[in-house]
Amino acid sequence: VLPDRLRALTHLLARLPGVGEKTAQRYVLFLAGEEGALATDLGRELSALAEAVRPCERCRNLAEVDDLGHAICAICKDNRRDSALLCVVARVQDLLAVERSGAMRGRYFVLGRLLSPLDGVGPDELPLAMLAARIQQDGVKEVIVATPPSVDGEATALLLAQELAPLGVRVSRIASGVPHGGDLEFSDQITLGRAISGRRSVDVPR
Amino acid sequence: VLPDRLRALTHLLARLPGVGEKTAQRYVLFLAGEEGALATDLGRELSALAEAVRPCERCRNLAEVDDLGHAICAICKDNRRDSALLCVVARVQDLLAVERSGAMRGRYFVLGRLLSPLDGVGPDELPLAMLAARIQQDGVKEVIVATPPSVDGEATALLLAQELAPLGVRVSRIASGVPHGGDLEFSDQITLGRAISGRRSVDVPR
Repeated sequence: VLPDRLRALTHLLARLPGVGEKTAQRYVLFLAGEEGALATDLGRELSALAEAVRPCERCRNLAEVDDLGHAICAICKDNRRDSALLCVVARVQDLLAVERSGAMRGRYFVLGRLLSPLDGVGPDELPLAMLAARIQQDGVKEVIVATPPSVDGEATALLLAQELAPLGVRVSRIASGVPHGGDLEFSDQITLGRAISGRRSVDVPR
Repeated sequence: VLPDRLRALTHLLARLPGVGEKTAQRYVLFLAGEEGALATDLGRELSALAEAVRPCERCRNLAEVDDLGHAICAICKDNRRDSALLCVVARVQDLLAVERSGAMRGRYFVLGRLLSPLDGVGPDELPLAMLAARIQQDGVKEVIVATPPSVDGEATALLLAQELAPLGVRVSRIASGVPHGGDLEFSDQITLGRAISGRRSVDVPR
C-alpha cells in the first residue's frame, strides 16, 4: 500500500536505538506527510554528518572536523581545563553525564567500549596505546576511571590500573554506594556492601 | 561540549512525534558514533523524500512520483478494486489500519484532517471539492465514512453526509460499539450507548 521508498526509510529508522517498525512508520508518515521541510533539513544534516563529525583525535569525544581536516573536541581545545587530571569514560554519553555534574575540571578520554570477555572484547580492542600516549604527552598525574560499577566496568578499571602502573600515574576509581536520595532499605546487597567498604571519615568542622 | 552541528541535528530530531530532547540526543550519539553508514543512508533517503513521495492525486494517500511527474498510489492503480465503494479516512495511518483489517475491497480518500471548530478547522479546510469530483468521475455508489468515533470525527461524518447528499450517493458510517474481546463492565457509557443504539438483528441460520 505504501511506496517502496517509504518502506526502505522505515527499515533504516527502525535501526535507531529503541525504535521498532511501528515507531519508525510513525516517523515516516509524519515526515512524508506535512513535514516535508523537516525531512529535507534532516536529510541534509545526516548526509553531512559522517564527513563533518568524527571522534576527537586526542580523546575520542565527538568533534567537528576543522578546515585542515583535524577533529579536536571543545574540551581538548579548552585551555582552562586541568591537563594533569584525566577522566576515562566508556561512552560519549558518560562524558556528558560527568560534565553535567560539574565536578570534573580536567579532561577526558573515551574508551568507546568496556572490556567484556563474554562478548569477545579483550584488551586489544581498547585504545590503550592511545590512552598511554595521551597521558605521557599531557603529563597527566591522575587518571579517574569513571566506567560504570558493573562487572565489565570493574574489569576495565582493573585492567587500566595494571596497564597504567608503569607510567607512574595515580589511577583512581569513582565511588560506588547508595545514591543521593536513595533508601538503604531498598538498596541491593552489593551497593550497600560497597557503600560500607568505601566509607570515609567524617571531618568535624572546628 | 558537543559540536554545534550535533545540537542542530538533535533539535531537528526532537520534532519527530513522541521524541524529546533526550531521545533525540540518544539517536544523534548513535548516528555520530558507530553508525556513520546509517546516517549517510538516512540522509540520502530523507533528502529525496520530498521530491519522490507526494500525496496521491486521486485520493491523497502517499504515492511515489513517476517519471512523468505524476503521483498515483498503489490502491488507485489497482484495477481489481471496486471503484463504486469509497472509504473516507482522516489520515494515511487510518487507511493502513483499514487495509490491515482486510474488510475493504473498494478505494480510499484521505481527508488529511478532521473538522475541528475549536482548532479553527472549518469545512473550507477539507478537500470537499476534490472528494466530490472523485465520486462523480468514478461513479461511486457508497461512501463509507471511517473517521474516528470522536467529536471531530462525528462532526466530519455529518458534514460529509450533508455535502454529498446532492450527489445521490449513499453515505454510511463505520459501526461504533464494544470492541472485539472488550468487556462490557469496563466499557464507557458512550461506547455502550452506541453499541445498543447501533444493535443489529441476529439472523438465525435455517
